[in-house]
Amino acid sequence: MNRVITIGREFGSGGRSIAKMVGEKLGIPVYDSELLAKIAEESGFAKEYVADCGENFSFDRLIARSLSGIGSYSQATAEDHLWTMQRKVILELAEKGSCIIVGRCADYILRDKADCLRVFIYADMKKRAEHIVKAYGESDVSPEKRLRDKDKRRSAFYTYHTDMTWGAPHNYHICLDSGTLGMEKCAELICSLY
Amino acid sequence: MNRVITIGREFGSGGRSIAKMVGEKLGIPVYDSELLAKIAEESGFAKEYVADCGENFSFDRLIARSLSGIGSYSQATAEDHLWTMQRKVILELAEKGSCIIVGRCADYILRDKADCLRVFIYADMKKRAEHIVKAYGESDVSPEKRLRDKDKRRSAFYTYHTDMTWGAPHNYHICLDSGTLGMEKCAELICSLY
Repeated sequence: MNRVITIGREFGSGGRSIAKMVGEKLGIPVYDSELLAKIAEESGFAKEYVADCGENFSFDRLIARSLSGIGSYSQATAEDHLWTMQRKVILELAEKGSCIIVGRCADYILRDKADCLRVFIYADMKKRAEHIVKAYGESDVSPEKRLRDKDKRRSAFYTYHTDMTWGAPHNYHICLDSGTLGMEKCAELICSLY
Repeated sequence: MNRVITIGREFGSGGRSIAKMVGEKLGIPVYDSELLAKIAEESGFAKEYVADCGENFSFDRLIARSLSGIGSYSQATAEDHLWTMQRKVILELAEKGSCIIVGRCADYILRDKADCLRVFIYADMKKRAEHIVKAYGESDVSPEKRLRDKDKRRSAFYTYHTDMTWGAPHNYHICLDSGTLGMEKCAELICSLY
């Protein structure tokens, strides 16, 4: 059976970089932006739509949908369609060979399907704020607000599709504070469990 | 500065055994039942009272206290006194030398005071149920009910004294699923972070 690592991560925790380090050390592919491209291709949605709606809940769309009543049916099915395609691509990748999958509820999607190590990466607000300013630059919105918004949307998306709490330890085999332990050490610990 | 490891753990997750393994590997003392004895000695409370009320919230006493109004003052201060003494003993132990402290909100108590690695150990209900039946035997109450009751009391105690959520990853540097990873592997990972 293929050995798959899923890495859930808070925005700005460096989960993506840790995934890359682990992939290099273990010599197995990492699906992050590559996953986006694949899902976009299979679903016919634009990459930007997949990036935004494939793991972030849209509170605006929820409100729009509620206000417009049954007229919102097509919007609901667009998101359901994306979820179905995303699930299919993730299951296929896990079937194809050992790999690392970043985000997108892969831990939930693969819970019974693969020999899967489920990891969650987090860090405190201060460390994450420094990280996103360095990685994505400043914006009009404070880094703390950007982090809180993203956390809220990822968390709501996860709960909507899985009925579980995003970042709750029981959904994962190991949860690591990258801010204190450092990204290198996190990668090393994950490799030692493979 | 002394290097202290605090190990929070769900009932039946094997956290106590993991602490012992880590203590042996690193050659530093583990304070678990020894901590109980010390707190009992310093506070003048019976060991059984310290064991039960030093990390488990009593919903019965809360109700009794509410019903009896201000007459409950002495009960409130007994628990406050225990908390104060427990805090004092934990701070002194961390001051005295490198060590491992199991449970009793030590992660919170030492959050600014020591060079402290904060660990949380958990496992799924099934694995924990097997563990407590093996360790403590059967009882009239189902193991699942015993686990749920204990989780609820520990969680309420933690929140009451720390204003934080027991077992939420952000309170710890690493959270480990001992049921999947195994106790030996958990001990090894903790040692590698020391």
